[in-house]
Amino acid sequence: MPNPTAAMLVIGDEILSGRTRDANMHHLAQELVKVGIDLKEVRVVSDDPDAIIAAVNDLRASFGTVITSGGIGPTHDDITADCIARAFGVSIDVRADARKILEDRYALMGTEINESRLRMARIPDTATLIENPVSGAPGFTLENVHVMAGVPSVFQAMVASVLPTLASGQPLLGQTLRIDRGEGDVAAPLAALAAQFPMLSVGSYPFQQNGAYGTNIVIRGVDGAIVDDAMAKLAALFPGDND
Amino acid sequence: MPNPTAAMLVIGDEILSGRTRDANMHHLAQELVKVGIDLKEVRVVSDDPDAIIAAVNDLRASFGTVITSGGIGPTHDDITADCIARAFGVSIDVRADARKILEDRYALMGTEINESRLRMARIPDTATLIENPVSGAPGFTLENVHVMAGVPSVFQAMVASVLPTLASGQPLLGQTLRIDRGEGDVAAPLAALAAQFPMLSVGSYPFQQNGAYGTNIVIRGVDGAIVDDAMAKLAALFPGDND
Repeated sequence: MPNPTAAMLVIGDEILSGRTRDANMHHLAQELVKVGIDLKEVRVVSDDPDAIIAAVNDLRASFGTVITSGGIGPTHDDITADCIARAFGVSIDVRADARKILEDRYALMGTEINESRLRMARIPDTATLIENPVSGAPGFTLENVHVMAGVPSVFQAMVASVLPTLASGQPLLGQTLRIDRGEGDVAAPLAALAAQFPMLSVGSYPFQQNGAYGTNIVIRGVDGAIVDDAMAKLAALFPGDND
Repeated sequence: MPNPTAAMLVIGDEILSGRTRDANMHHLAQELVKVGIDLKEVRVVSDDPDAIIAAVNDLRASFGTVITSGGIGPTHDDITADCIARAFGVSIDVRADARKILEDRYALMGTEINESRLRMARIPDTATLIENPVSGAPGFTLENVHVMAGVPSVFQAMVASVLPTLASGQPLLGQTLRIDRGEGDVAAPLAALAAQFPMLSVGSYPFQQNGAYGTNIVIRGVDGAIVDDAMAKLAALFPGDND
């Protein structure tokens, strides 16, 4: 049975404008691979309602799970929750359970809960909340879409709380062999090896170091013994050129 | 007149599997903003022909320029050029101009040009070549789609050679003000300010430092005097809390 699939939707003008380098994509990719969920696509869209709604509807129809990042804070440019509600055609308002979480949090901090902060309690109807142990304001899950904050520490905490609820697959086991030859020399024997192991993914990643060309070969599969076998055959193809 | 638009398509199992952290997206975003081209969407898809073809056709119909990254090397997993040809419905084969570039390059290096390396001379009909001063093998342009290598040094060189050929817009000028208060305190006056300057983009990015909450406000626009005016009004809203 193939592994479950996932997609990620990053909502963020700050990434598209080059101001911020995304960190959440890399974190999510590493977490999903550990539990055997195949991350198939990532989209980064701007803070534009039509773009967000179209992307979330496209991705939730195409993949088993969708995880979004960004745009659920208290400011005027935080429009993700409202867009998700529109994408699903459900209503959205300040919800009592989310409001209670914020009230308790701000009472503890001695901070007043104002109109802006209450925006973070706007949760679409029928959604369940995702806990935010870092800063209180919850994310939420609506069907197969999990809406999380963009701040990396909060995103990571939300991923940690949602991942165990998802159907997992067979984790891909990967091994890497560094070969001190250019891709052009490696390509033909590598293609033959890949054809011999159709159940494995065989990737080739060139690099340059001190002016010399080299290639990292990554072999991945769910059966460790088969990966080991392919790696041994790969090493034997390039004696003296690998470490 | 609105700025020209662009999208990026990253082809890369290595990014979706968490093995590699993408660097090209951040570089391209920073370069485009300098010349007033609005990067509207980035998609990362796996090394799967159907996914690549669907994404490139979707993006090239929706945005002025599409830049792709990855999958044009000599190995069996380098399938981008063939997918682009299929997306446009044009034929593809080893082309004399690209072959000449590779032959000259490898002659200079004393390296044999084998079948695998010749794969890098497969260029779709009617495409024009993009120079690769780093490692020889060219990228190519087909209509509004520019196909570039994934290796960051090569990608950056190709971006540098294509950018001057694109219609540019008005570069966004951006200024950032750090306010030592949480987003929840900043949100209401900030929304009022944003409403007062509909021609500007006003973004709010929370952070935590030494346990205290703060917010970076980024104001962007094409008219520097208006950005200055908005920044001065912003600073006046939070006297003593900004630096």
